[in-house]
Amino acid sequence: MYIWFNGKLMDRQSASLSLQDRGVLYGDGLFETFRVEKGTPMLEDAHLNRLRQGACLLRFAQVPEPEELKRGIRELLRANRVRSGYLRITLTRGIGGFGQPLHRLTDISVWMEAREHPLDLSRYEQGVQAVVTSIRRNPYSPLTRVKSLNYLESVLARDEAAEAGVEEGIFRTVDGDVSETASANLFLVQDGCVVTPDVSRGLLPGIVRSWVLDTCTQRGWAWETRAVSVEELMKADEAFLTNSTWGPFPLVAVDGRSIGSGKPGPVTREWISRWRKVAAGDSAE
Amino acid sequence: MYIWFNGKLMDRQSASLSLQDRGVLYGDGLFETFRVEKGTPMLEDAHLNRLRQGACLLRFAQVPEPEELKRGIRELLRANRVRSGYLRITLTRGIGGFGQPLHRLTDISVWMEAREHPLDLSRYEQGVQAVVTSIRRNPYSPLTRVKSLNYLESVLARDEAAEAGVEEGIFRTVDGDVSETASANLFLVQDGCVVTPDVSRGLLPGIVRSWVLDTCTQRGWAWETRAVSVEELMKADEAFLTNSTWGPFPLVAVDGRSIGSGKPGPVTREWISRWRKVAAGDSAE
Ligand SMILES: Cc1ncc(COP(=O)(O)O)c(C=O)c1O
Ligand SMILES: Cc1ncc(COP(=O)(O)O)c(C=O)c1O
Repeated sequence: MYIWFNGKLMDRQSASLSLQDRGVLYGDGLFETFRVEKGTPMLEDAHLNRLRQGACLLRFAQVPEPEELKRGIRELLRANRVRSGYLRITLTRGIGGFGQPLHRLTDISVWMEAREHPLDLSRYEQGVQAVVTSIRRNPYSPLTRVKSLNYLESVLARDEAAEAGVEEGIFRTVDGDVSETASANLFLVQDGCVVTPDVSRGLLPGIVRSWVLDTCTQRGWAWETRAVSVEELMKADEAFLTNSTWGPFPLVAVDGRSIGSGKPGPVTREWISRWRKVAAGDSAE
Repeated sequence: MYIWFNGKLMDRQSASLSLQDRGVLYGDGLFETFRVEKGTPMLEDAHLNRLRQGACLLRFAQVPEPEELKRGIRELLRANRVRSGYLRITLTRGIGGFGQPLHRLTDISVWMEAREHPLDLSRYEQGVQAVVTSIRRNPYSPLTRVKSLNYLESVLARDEAAEAGVEEGIFRTVDGDVSETASANLFLVQDGCVVTPDVSRGLLPGIVRSWVLDTCTQRGWAWETRAVSVEELMKADEAFLTNSTWGPFPLVAVDGRSIGSGKPGPVTREWISRWRKVAAGDSAE
């Protein structure tokens, strides 16, 4: 297994991080997780754009060129023979102490991992269950909008879900409405209209979330982004989650209560099949 | 220079972290920074307690024994010949992926660094200036109460301060009141009473903050913890900050406006001299 580290392919075992790297000292960095299908990273430009924007928001003095990253992605997928799996890019602000002015920290660290990992398709048939966790997202922090290495809220929310015996943990905002889950954005379907909390609700603007909303716009389908209450979610006709690993997937119950019929709904199924066409490289989608 | 890593002293250069360690993948860990004076860590038990409580809050399946850490601290301070400096302990949840149940992650990583670094005493004479930053702390998140590796808000707040040409950046809460600064707790003095935001204000319960409040209680001096507005801070007779590196130190101006006389006030000076006695090992304090 290879890793791509600061521009070079190397054996995974021989790559490691300095204990002085701000990535581990302060979680001072970002990451992106791509789905790979047919040996190709899905929605690659969108991910690389978000990485760049996130680095900008975190005031990184330096960001690797997208072209360099793309070359690295291709090299690594080939070296590890990944056809259906994932790839993660991690970027840290490199070695440095707390007081140092960020604009001087130009020696950033970048690495990528990739491995084969076909999806368990039964998730699309059965859907997942969620609980509303105790953790409240902060809509007034820039950090929720960045896929940063400060990922502990997700770690804790996911564990609350696991303790409740379900797959997903829902965050509310400090204002009490629905934000997203530990690792996905959340959609509901109301009378055929696709609704998702707006970006001001302390959520990560997901790549698949954008793909859903853009697709709606292009096709002239009804969609809305706004504040969503837990009650509204409970009463929705259907609900689904989105992230890069799975694309759209059904959310069938929350806190032990079924959403809609308690089975993946028709609108959700359409989104899943649209996504699988993108994964299959069908350019019409 | 030595480092103490998972129970062993080793050369600093030869110690490094796996790229699969959750500390760097998700900022999934904690740290403590101790001041060392006369070769002895200050308020050692209080720091080790907070580390333990933090690990508990973050649902660590395993925590190193305080006695083992104490032995490590002594070994490392001796090996690096630290008389006046600092020591940092970092704890991570070790190697593991996102979905893994936290209670199974028993193979945690722990390391310590220590170095000589005498303080620049002019800070106590001149005090520091601060700006109110754009970053709002979340009183509804458990994370602010833990000294976790999710430290990006502090990184950004400190950089906002540096850009404004001052030393410290103040966080407000999402409700608009004062929380703390990027790396210290904040106190004001009003008619001789020591006032500091209460723990529900999304702040790290500092070791020196507790020492100040405990000392007040023992001596029968007036103190209060409650919500503090920015306006109240501006109108205070004096203000000071506390952290383990500096103990108490004067805050003399905020957003370019002087607090009180714009010089370290008499109550602040007393706290500084009390702290310096503790640092000198004067057991009467
Ligand atoms: C907290 C959080 N929200 C939403 C998402 C979905 O984002 P994307 O569609 O870009 O994968 C993720 C992805 O991992 C996430 O971690
Ligand atoms: C955000 C924050 N608040 C407060 C403090 C002060 O805590 P302590 O007195 O334990 O050093 C620190 C210490 O680094 C800190 O990082």
